[in-house]
Amino acid sequence: MCESRLTLHTDKYQINMMYAHWKQGTQNQRAAFEAYFRKLPFGNGYAVFAGLERIVEYLRNLAFGEEEIAFLRTQEENYDEGFLAELEKFKFSGNLHAVREGTLVFPNEPLILVEARVFEAQLIETAMLNFMNYQTLIATKASRIKQVAPVERLLEFGTRRAQEADAAIWGARATYIAGFHSTSNLLAGMRFGLPTSGTHAHSWVQGHDSEEDAFRQYAEALPDHVTLLVDTYDTLKSGVPNAIRIAKELEKKGKRLKGIRLDSGDLAYLSKRARAMLDEAGLTDVKIVASNDLDENIIAELKAQGARIDVWGVGTQLITAFDQPSLGGVYKLVAREKNGDLEPVIKISGNPEKISNPGIKEAYRIVNKETGMAEADFICMRGEKFSREGEPIKLFDPLHPHRFKIVNEYEAIPLLQPVFINGVRVSELPGLDDIRSYHEIQLALFWPEHLRKLNPEMYRITFSRAMLDLKAELIDRHSH
Amino acid sequence: MCESRLTLHTDKYQINMMYAHWKQGTQNQRAAFEAYFRKLPFGNGYAVFAGLERIVEYLRNLAFGEEEIAFLRTQEENYDEGFLAELEKFKFSGNLHAVREGTLVFPNEPLILVEARVFEAQLIETAMLNFMNYQTLIATKASRIKQVAPVERLLEFGTRRAQEADAAIWGARATYIAGFHSTSNLLAGMRFGLPTSGTHAHSWVQGHDSEEDAFRQYAEALPDHVTLLVDTYDTLKSGVPNAIRIAKELEKKGKRLKGIRLDSGDLAYLSKRARAMLDEAGLTDVKIVASNDLDENIIAELKAQGARIDVWGVGTQLITAFDQPSLGGVYKLVAREKNGDLEPVIKISGNPEKISNPGIKEAYRIVNKETGMAEADFICMRGEKFSREGEPIKLFDPLHPHRFKIVNEYEAIPLLQPVFINGVRVSELPGLDDIRSYHEIQLALFWPEHLRKLNPEMYRITFSRAMLDLKAELIDRHSH
Repeated sequence: MCESRLTLHTDKYQINMMYAHWKQGTQNQRAAFEAYFRKLPFGNGYAVFAGLERIVEYLRNLAFGEEEIAFLRTQEENYDEGFLAELEKFKFSGNLHAVREGTLVFPNEPLILVEARVFEAQLIETAMLNFMNYQTLIATKASRIKQVAPVERLLEFGTRRAQEADAAIWGARATYIAGFHSTSNLLAGMRFGLPTSGTHAHSWVQGHDSEEDAFRQYAEALPDHVTLLVDTYDTLKSGVPNAIRIAKELEKKGKRLKGIRLDSGDLAYLSKRARAMLDEAGLTDVKIVASNDLDENIIAELKAQGARIDVWGVGTQLITAFDQPSLGGVYKLVAREKNGDLEPVIKISGNPEKISNPGIKEAYRIVNKETGMAEADFICMRGEKFSREGEPIKLFDPLHPHRFKIVNEYEAIPLLQPVFINGVRVSELPGLDDIRSYHEIQLALFWPEHLRKLNPEMYRITFSRAMLDLKAELIDRHSH
Repeated sequence: MCESRLTLHTDKYQINMMYAHWKQGTQNQRAAFEAYFRKLPFGNGYAVFAGLERIVEYLRNLAFGEEEIAFLRTQEENYDEGFLAELEKFKFSGNLHAVREGTLVFPNEPLILVEARVFEAQLIETAMLNFMNYQTLIATKASRIKQVAPVERLLEFGTRRAQEADAAIWGARATYIAGFHSTSNLLAGMRFGLPTSGTHAHSWVQGHDSEEDAFRQYAEALPDHVTLLVDTYDTLKSGVPNAIRIAKELEKKGKRLKGIRLDSGDLAYLSKRARAMLDEAGLTDVKIVASNDLDENIIAELKAQGARIDVWGVGTQLITAFDQPSLGGVYKLVAREKNGDLEPVIKISGNPEKISNPGIKEAYRIVNKETGMAEADFICMRGEKFSREGEPIKLFDPLHPHRFKIVNEYEAIPLLQPVFINGVRVSELPGLDDIRSYHEIQLALFWPEHLRKLNPEMYRITFSRAMLDLKAELIDRHSH
């Protein structure tokens, strides 16, 4: 986790474009950019937005100090000193609206909206995407795991396999938002107030003359927190019997063994056998923790086979989002100042799905008042009138406009919240436990069909007629 | 990149084991741990070791300050104050040997060897693996790309898709070690002295009334560094002709257009057409830069199709190691103090490939003096005598011991170099350009059959007879 300044955590082309704006005298023109992603990761039916706290911290600390200026002076572009002097005065003075962390989000809807001097809006693209892409990806992966293990305890312990320190720490936070219970990473615990947990490693057992002795010493040191790793030599012949022996010794002191951990072998078979051995010894309250390259598919399979596992420890697959380690979030110019107004712009592409949606937009979650469930998200132009109260709303399927549904009584909940206005923070971010609860409440708005991990029913993202007309008009203007 | 202290960037179980050692009075016993990986990533024939600079920085800053102690005091384990007082005095006072960054490394050979008080050796496992795993992974991925594009310029620009800030920054450094020429990330440039590069984004073009105007303004701002992104509207009908127009205007000022960048569409077709258009306009020196989700396979395919690309910009696939985003490096206890001596230990596993290699070892690269090529790596016990000079050496295939080769005249180059002895740094780390050159020289020691990206011939890692006998003996001791 970086407390140090991240102003230069950006692509060089941002500085070059800022320089070119400064040279042509347009650095103060206003621009609006929108951050969104085009495709859900993992074949999931939703993503879980995360990264805003990091973004806010980053924007607050944004400044060019002596070190940054001195470095830029060494670059072969040979930037004009007037430009560097302009950077010395730099601070973020724009507006930022964003979706709350923990919100379920979908492709092509605006997650962050930046309106600022183009000078500022350009600089912050790279770092904002870096934070949003990773943290949203990991929260989404964690949420998939939570879907298959809704009642068990979920531990994140991927640090050693994470992609460097920030990923471990911010990733741990993202998993907590999505319902994980604790992390093994103490720095994440210290920084964010996350619950932490941990037992012992194989090296603890190897470091003693016998497994039994190792278990006993560990239980003496931490008698109230004993979870024993039972697979160093032989899980069923040695590990579990030794753990039972120690549990009995703890009993005599009025203490309970908390759990055993299985970290290799066939977790379905071993957990069932271990459960039977523990139960037979009267240790029905001792939990079985499992780990070893788990993900949502393996956990679901193990549960289908009747594995007796109370606690899942998830590492590599979660903290790297192993099956899709990047969310392709983008940040696109949607409007720019012209003659004093913000005029919508578009980016054309040979790939139709890469054509951007022009203009400054608002996003609403349409919740059916009869069912209490989310029916669709509705994206319209800012200030566009639509039947918010009383009248029914018609929600088109964007890919198949002949398909639509009508909702009679609904609530339109705005997704984008103001965070900075003219560079000033206008809202306190919620605490982490509030984000976690909020996420849980959001999940309850969605039919289970949208939440299942395989072939989910796609939640509808509907664009207003005005937005679609504007898009068609701008495409037309550029097609000649 | 974190300048802040990373002491608690560790798994809680490390602290719990340290606590248990302290409680049983064994915290000062010495232990030896070895870091290695078991399997090469991406089906590659080698990996490129990286991460040592980060590890050295981390070990130098390792200390428990007020904030860390206060945090540990809040943990439910309720650690004894005597233990916390012990932590306040903590510093790394052990020995660390490591392979040099940029070295080609292979499965099951020791990359880092730590000999220290068990108290210290345990704490540092998590962060060291986190750094080594990620940076080695990315250097290896970058090296694969370098293999298919040995003469072209290679630009790293994955920051927005990297797994948080540290990954972007340390990842950029790792790609440079493996032969990339520059990064887009300015913080990596500032921190490590990496060359940086960057052009402009689609938003620059969208932010002007016409593409031509956008190009012209950019060329006026940075006349010596103009690479124009030509795919905002239509690459061949609009982008390339506009770029040629600007090139002609630059010519009149005695300047040259440096390049054009293709970022979408069929890069083989577009680059050939663009090359022809540029050449026809007398712009044979203008480079073609390509980007868009490239990796070593796509680059090789494009080259096979005759794509005319001079510079490859590689992002997501590289910086996340998309096809295998984690190197499974581990850190295993190989010896522990007993009766004053360091006694070898083993970790048994149901999976034979997960059984650890016991004892403190040395690793040598056996270079055949006749050919100048590396024949195998030879791993033996520390201090073990083997025919280093004069006599031939017999190198067994570890999986098929009936296969062996004999090298008559060879040099045995030690791979593990001392970095810390009794907590004191005993060598300066090489500068980044030295690491990069060293890596290039190392590559030249290997037959191309080991370096190809698909189905490489496996380089031989041979263990000494003494090591194999010790392993068999320890397995036997635990199998009863």
